[in-house]
Amino acid sequence: MTVIRVPDGSPFGHDNLPYGVFSRPGEAPRAGVRLGDSVVDLAILLGDDVFAASSLNPFLAQGRARWTEVRARIGELVAGDVPDQAVHPVAQVELHLPVEVADYVDFYASEHHASNLGRLFRPDSEPLMPNWKHLPVGYHGRAGTVVVSGTDIVRPCGQRKAPDETAPTYGPSRRLDIEAELGFVVGTGSPLGSRIGVGEFDEHVFGAVLVNDWSARDLQAWEYVPLGPHLGKSFATSISPWVVPMDALAAARVPLPGQDPEPLPYLRGGQWGLDIDLAVEWNGEVVARPPYREMYWSPAQMLAHLTVNGASARTGDLFASGTISGPEKEQRGAFIELTWGGREPVVVKGEERTFLADGDEVTITATAPGANGGRIGFGEVTGTIRPAAGD
Amino acid sequence: MTVIRVPDGSPFGHDNLPYGVFSRPGEAPRAGVRLGDSVVDLAILLGDDVFAASSLNPFLAQGRARWTEVRARIGELVAGDVPDQAVHPVAQVELHLPVEVADYVDFYASEHHASNLGRLFRPDSEPLMPNWKHLPVGYHGRAGTVVVSGTDIVRPCGQRKAPDETAPTYGPSRRLDIEAELGFVVGTGSPLGSRIGVGEFDEHVFGAVLVNDWSARDLQAWEYVPLGPHLGKSFATSISPWVVPMDALAAARVPLPGQDPEPLPYLRGGQWGLDIDLAVEWNGEVVARPPYREMYWSPAQMLAHLTVNGASARTGDLFASGTISGPEKEQRGAFIELTWGGREPVVVKGEERTFLADGDEVTITATAPGANGGRIGFGEVTGTIRPAAGD
Repeated sequence: MTVIRVPDGSPFGHDNLPYGVFSRPGEAPRAGVRLGDSVVDLAILLGDDVFAASSLNPFLAQGRARWTEVRARIGELVAGDVPDQAVHPVAQVELHLPVEVADYVDFYASEHHASNLGRLFRPDSEPLMPNWKHLPVGYHGRAGTVVVSGTDIVRPCGQRKAPDETAPTYGPSRRLDIEAELGFVVGTGSPLGSRIGVGEFDEHVFGAVLVNDWSARDLQAWEYVPLGPHLGKSFATSISPWVVPMDALAAARVPLPGQDPEPLPYLRGGQWGLDIDLAVEWNGEVVARPPYREMYWSPAQMLAHLTVNGASARTGDLFASGTISGPEKEQRGAFIELTWGGREPVVVKGEERTFLADGDEVTITATAPGANGGRIGFGEVTGTIRPAAGD
Repeated sequence: MTVIRVPDGSPFGHDNLPYGVFSRPGEAPRAGVRLGDSVVDLAILLGDDVFAASSLNPFLAQGRARWTEVRARIGELVAGDVPDQAVHPVAQVELHLPVEVADYVDFYASEHHASNLGRLFRPDSEPLMPNWKHLPVGYHGRAGTVVVSGTDIVRPCGQRKAPDETAPTYGPSRRLDIEAELGFVVGTGSPLGSRIGVGEFDEHVFGAVLVNDWSARDLQAWEYVPLGPHLGKSFATSISPWVVPMDALAAARVPLPGQDPEPLPYLRGGQWGLDIDLAVEWNGEVVARPPYREMYWSPAQMLAHLTVNGASARTGDLFASGTISGPEKEQRGAFIELTWGGREPVVVKGEERTFLADGDEVTITATAPGANGGRIGFGEVTGTIRPAAGD
């Protein structure tokens, strides 16, 4: 038996206990929970084969009461002696996509981001569309290209047309960007023709992950009218391997900054945000610190909106916040905002930079207040840009 | 043993043989092929448990060579004596969603439809966006709300704002519409970072279905800028239960009407369309006959575009054409076009109608030239509108 030691100040203390899917060399992926620098094999710890699956989905489908019970039981067990064969150093396992993603919806919930993008994409119009403060604008992304942190990102090819060009050309994206976001994982869904009210968030949503919604701005700017982003986003969306349970984020709940006009009744209530601090590292240097607490629309409002038309939700649905940007320049969660469309380069490791170059690595991390007065961590979502594939 | 009789002129003759998933009362769903008015149980006919699954996905994943071999073998077997227990009258089985849908992408490939919608949604601008003739515009829809023909459609609620209203209101959609489309089912996918060329369509695409992309025009008009349609579409998309193999559609291939300007090289080749005649029935009365042969972008171009950025494709991916509209008024595949935004009602069973009322039933059917000189059929995709759910 082993007692798991948690290093002082670890963001993976007893008040976090995020879930993931790991594998040891030559073995199949299975579910684990992270404590300190260890991964605990849940099928062994709890003697329950639902955790021997290659995704968290079977556990997520068991619902809120079971999530609460399992979290409490894990907390008790990892505080004492744990069987040796259930404990692995995190550095010695491979981490996998924790969830089999059903549908993926990306919102646009930061007023600062939406205003900045509006100014950059549509300089002659009002930055916010008339609908923006009435509903959380969102769209469906490609679930099949949600990948786990660490997956290389191949620079996408596609059609680009700069404003001064008369026709589009084909080639690798010249304006490859990131979007630092928070994603929410649906545990138990809802049937077709019903809806999930703003007050029912806790029953349905299991936890949160970090998201990097890689974006090819040149592809996006040319393609996105009138049906929205497609190829400029669908090549890859990275998520962090650890799903932080909503239960671990209870101490992070804060009021929203404020909504004016007051939203329609189906979006009232559930108006809480999360006090999560993100950091965006470009080749190891922090270039932005987006604050989740500045988001205009709340996670509960996003889910209520998503299902208000009777759309069903499923175990494994992922909905993300959209880029998290605060009011200050150094709080912007996308490089197109940070460099104002590439016109105001940022200095990274002594070099002026605008969009991503091949070989660049971007890592997003985040922490939040935990139940024990310290900080809990999301770990990281990271990716390295590889050159475009040849034809 | 039984000899399956095919009624004269049946659209489900020996040159069609579409695949579906059926169940008998109290039994689990399994794969079948349709011949005449019969469903043939494929697990029994072929002695292969891949067809005992509740979706066609395991068979689809086996790839082109296997699809060709199985189709030939079924053709031989159903021409002779078939075991009694493998044959069921189609009227005595329940038909299910034939495919577990992975990602769903909806294109916008009819020039007539895109022009009409442009005029209706943006009366003060050019009807076609500058990108429209350079790339097949498309967006991701909600895979989890793709339902089989016959599923009731609950009128969606959401935010609507008419141009003369100062603020949005919440309630049931007042402009519920259809979109008559053709959908293509991906059998074998492609890995992340690769692409499917226009010439590789046949290797990857298994077959086609009819699609009704139900659309709440009032929700859509208010929400769709700048990220595209979402709640106005995500409440339900119906597909026909029979997947017509691309092999059965060989005789239906026709040249496209013509593309000007010439598309970029990655979209050249694969420029064939399909000579499929659709009919839209509103409460049993045919109100439109959309011709698929008029589509601007080809199915092979849609798939090539979808993956040109390196997005992976998966078994069960569904991509649809977008509304099929021809140049004539009676060829328009959506009621918003047919009634010109509701301003020019059509007469259905003696009543002037614009958008869908509760209790209305819409049925879309289609036929195409078959290999034997006759017509093969897609069957139908049908749905009845139920009143909005109460709060």
